[in-house]
Amino acid sequence: MRNYKIASLPGDGIGIDVTAEAVKVLDAVARLDGGIRFEFQEFPWGTQYYLKHGEMMPKDALAILASFDSILLGAVGDPSVADHVTLWGMLLPIRQSFQEYVNLRPIKLLPGIESPLKNKGVKDIDMVFVRENTEGEYSGVGGRVNPGTSAEVALQTGVFTRHGTERILRFAFEVAQKRPKKHLTSVTKSNACNYSMVFWDEVFKEVGTDYADIHADQYLVDAMAAFLVTHPERFDVIVASNLFGDILTDIGSAIMGSIGLGASANIDPSFKYPSMFEPIHGSAPDIQGMGIANPLGAIGAVKMLLEHHGENEMAELLQQVIEQQITAQKVLTPDLGGTAKTWEVGDDIVTRILASR
Amino acid sequence: MRNYKIASLPGDGIGIDVTAEAVKVLDAVARLDGGIRFEFQEFPWGTQYYLKHGEMMPKDALAILASFDSILLGAVGDPSVADHVTLWGMLLPIRQSFQEYVNLRPIKLLPGIESPLKNKGVKDIDMVFVRENTEGEYSGVGGRVNPGTSAEVALQTGVFTRHGTERILRFAFEVAQKRPKKHLTSVTKSNACNYSMVFWDEVFKEVGTDYADIHADQYLVDAMAAFLVTHPERFDVIVASNLFGDILTDIGSAIMGSIGLGASANIDPSFKYPSMFEPIHGSAPDIQGMGIANPLGAIGAVKMLLEHHGENEMAELLQQVIEQQITAQKVLTPDLGGTAKTWEVGDDIVTRILASR
Ligand SMILES: CC(C)[C@H](C(=O)O)[C@@H](O)C(=O)O
Ligand SMILES: CC(C)[C@H](C(=O)O)[C@@H](O)C(=O)O
Repeated sequence: MRNYKIASLPGDGIGIDVTAEAVKVLDAVARLDGGIRFEFQEFPWGTQYYLKHGEMMPKDALAILASFDSILLGAVGDPSVADHVTLWGMLLPIRQSFQEYVNLRPIKLLPGIESPLKNKGVKDIDMVFVRENTEGEYSGVGGRVNPGTSAEVALQTGVFTRHGTERILRFAFEVAQKRPKKHLTSVTKSNACNYSMVFWDEVFKEVGTDYADIHADQYLVDAMAAFLVTHPERFDVIVASNLFGDILTDIGSAIMGSIGLGASANIDPSFKYPSMFEPIHGSAPDIQGMGIANPLGAIGAVKMLLEHHGENEMAELLQQVIEQQITAQKVLTPDLGGTAKTWEVGDDIVTRILASR
Repeated sequence: MRNYKIASLPGDGIGIDVTAEAVKVLDAVARLDGGIRFEFQEFPWGTQYYLKHGEMMPKDALAILASFDSILLGAVGDPSVADHVTLWGMLLPIRQSFQEYVNLRPIKLLPGIESPLKNKGVKDIDMVFVRENTEGEYSGVGGRVNPGTSAEVALQTGVFTRHGTERILRFAFEVAQKRPKKHLTSVTKSNACNYSMVFWDEVFKEVGTDYADIHADQYLVDAMAAFLVTHPERFDVIVASNLFGDILTDIGSAIMGSIGLGASANIDPSFKYPSMFEPIHGSAPDIQGMGIANPLGAIGAVKMLLEHHGENEMAELLQQVIEQQITAQKVLTPDLGGTAKTWEVGDDIVTRILASR
């Protein structure tokens, strides 16, 4: 029996709605496979917890989480507390402390989904973003001088280490090697960010010499953002810094038809720490509990969890089930033009998994 | 006679092609108006100059330019020299030294132009980006520790001063006040950039109290990038930092149908220094001289130059001429589905200006 201990962190807003479906789906996978067991433990951390306890998670949260094999995260954030407090209190410390330095985000236009783009090439949208996930613009380094006065200055420093830059670029090249197109695009802004991004470009070039079989190219982030709208079919694997990866993957989920479909994996490839799986969408607390949140992003994250643990058969099955579920065009949430509730989509996926034996 | 001294800096690549058309158009405006005179002086600065002299512009370039009323810039950049060298050698020092702290970029879907977006609301795309243009992520502050070793670290610091942040936000509120919708959206990433962007949000709130008539809201940059694809019709005036403004306006020019149509003004509102007007597109040296560059971005920049100098009648006329020229669907460059050459579009605009009397 392959046993996986999963920490479930629904977090805030619709994070709670969609995580329930993700757990249901993992349960169904275990029932189908027979050889897998998931042990879940749920932690009610997030903004509600913060409002009661003055912190997003207890002091020993990271120690507790460290004993799990993987983490399922819903979403974090609520208008009642400043975003930098909630995110630096929960999501970002997990990514950084657990050295989940890879944020993997596949962007694929699935059959049956309408993209907001007209381009003919749009049906060929099939790319993977490899986003740096522990440092860069998200290092949290900075400060303020002369606060509250007219001489005030706020400083925010992006920190790019060779170790951190090299490992993410190397990982991206390896991802590109496993795909038929073998095409890797690095996105920077070296004409303006004359230290950090120039450095990134250098390391990209260096690391690239070890991967002669990969067609490697570079774009500036502004041009790339426009290209994702005008020529998304041109790209295969895209590697970018923490901030640029964040922005570009949101454009990615927009062009794949709904931000509700995007899934993402925060991976520590060494397996020293648990990796974390989450939908790309945010917590949207205004629609929590209404049943209109699309759980397919969270369910896509479950697929990535299975892949991460080498459960490839089940991962592939789940991907097929998701695609069939969408193609059937029957049980879809409003973002995809349907009228189904969040849990109806989850149930439909479960039924399809169990029926697939 | 209202006399304007214009420095023309064609720069590199198609910057040279389109600036020639912009100058032709200004000449036609002067002929039509009778009361305006433009005195042009062209400076051959840019990458070719750099390859000969080791610098993009001569040492006294800024002193020379300071005596002009405005600057027409084509584009800067060439693959033969690293982008941060060319840009920090020419474009960025002009923006920063001349305190052109406003980068104004109107994004409007013109009749006759096809947007790459399907959305029905797309025909209502009509927004203005107000981008901070002298500091923030483009401050050029940073460095490297332990260069070339495995302990190397590159640092890039965004510098946000109260003075610089307040003036751009105030300017944006004033722009919003002059538009019917009176809607201003500020774009930040305060959940991750916990010093700079949190500061920006605070100043936005403070300044906003002076503009109670403006509907002011805020978005995170990742969500905003996606919204520009899914709901661009929702926005009116958008204010953002140097880097975010850069990225978002490129998405803006993508959704307005061609990056070749985007125009931008780098403005010192105090008129102490010359302001600079340029198309949004880059130098694309691979297509220089081929006649396929769209000059309408550069010609749109001319319209903004006229506006800046209070030549509103001529500015409006030029805007009408541009719209008529596009609607006619006769003389268009390949990016808009036509077969006309760069100079044929310029000539057509000139003919229409002169015929409009
Ligand atoms: C919530 C926020 C801090 C986070 C990020 O910027 O990384 C989110 O946008 C994401 O993409 O996972
Ligand atoms: C060329 C580059 C430095 C510049 C910028 O980033 O400001 C350009 O992209 C722009 O938008 O004017």
